[in-house]
Amino acid sequence: MTIRYPNGQKYVPVQRAERQHTSQLSYSNRGKTLEDELNDSNEYYLSRNIAVIHKKPVPIQVVNVHYPARSAAVITEAYFRTPSTTDFNGVWKGKYIDFEAKETKNKTSFPLQNIHEHQVDHMESVTAQNGIAFLIVRFSSLNRYFVVPYKMMKEKWDRMKAGGRKSITLAEFEEAAHEIIPGFMPKLDYLRAVSTFFNTQRNETTER
Amino acid sequence: MTIRYPNGQKYVPVQRAERQHTSQLSYSNRGKTLEDELNDSNEYYLSRNIAVIHKKPVPIQVVNVHYPARSAAVITEAYFRTPSTTDFNGVWKGKYIDFEAKETKNKTSFPLQNIHEHQVDHMESVTAQNGIAFLIVRFSSLNRYFVVPYKMMKEKWDRMKAGGRKSITLAEFEEAAHEIIPGFMPKLDYLRAVSTFFNTQRNETTER
Repeated sequence: MTIRYPNGQKYVPVQRAERQHTSQLSYSNRGKTLEDELNDSNEYYLSRNIAVIHKKPVPIQVVNVHYPARSAAVITEAYFRTPSTTDFNGVWKGKYIDFEAKETKNKTSFPLQNIHEHQVDHMESVTAQNGIAFLIVRFSSLNRYFVVPYKMMKEKWDRMKAGGRKSITLAEFEEAAHEIIPGFMPKLDYLRAVSTFFNTQRNETTER
Repeated sequence: MTIRYPNGQKYVPVQRAERQHTSQLSYSNRGKTLEDELNDSNEYYLSRNIAVIHKKPVPIQVVNVHYPARSAAVITEAYFRTPSTTDFNGVWKGKYIDFEAKETKNKTSFPLQNIHEHQVDHMESVTAQNGIAFLIVRFSSLNRYFVVPYKMMKEKWDRMKAGGRKSITLAEFEEAAHEIIPGFMPKLDYLRAVSTFFNTQRNETTER
């Protein structure tokens, strides 16, 4: 039975609240978003001189700014804008890296509605300039992570545009994407997965 | 004599207001910031499949968001954050491009206080990963533009750190930076200047 205060708020015994707090401390990775995890990887890469990759700031349209005397400017009215590119980009051994990161609670497939058309266009342009574009997907309920090369993502995107299924199935991920096995330092060594498919792509190009 | 309405607002004859409007139309580049001009260049490069380079959004710390029913979320409290990287980045012929853009009204030198220490660190890391890092400076009063390779910028930065002058003189720009001569389409073809010093750098490396 849930006990409630007169204002309708749930009554939570102090002991239980404390226990929750402790468990949060000991499993500090729980509740981390994919973005947080990738920021950790990027910090690791930067500190070891492996790569320089950053999350781009969220684009915000500022409408009103207040300048209080002797204090920092306060933005008092602003709106979130739709990003025109992807979330992360940077450089790794001279190569341009560009990717979008998405998580899904779905256990059997990744819905393509999570991707915007202009993001696909952006990744297409990046690929045309010999940049490395990909998607990182986390199946949160399964705790599984995949790097999806742009080429694979585009195939599934075109299938959807042609009237086919609106998602990429887990089986398709297992078959053609590159799984990231979570480790310790960094937890998500996504560049290892990228080097696999990038080398494959390069060999294909050389063989022609 | 300025004529005012009862509410204190200035009276502007219609004819004069129209004339101002017309002159704005015919000299549409007047008043464009360096950022606007570079965004134009980048749009041009993108549309011609020359390069994919974008301005990063301004980093903003969102504190409060209001969600009115049936409308877009409104940010009601937020603050500007100091950028940890540079303004622009992207990919050009497989090469990672990363730069900061600054303008000065000064006619004889560019004050280095316009650059943050962490931006120098960022450009150093980018260079270590074989990315191409540079600075674009506009002398607004002179209508002159220069591309400053990171190597040159770092020399002047180190000189300042060693107790030397806190700016780069115009003469030093003329001697060692690469001037962008404004053209028509795009007005600022900065990648042309970059290709000059990048090829020089590459030859130097090859000769070793």
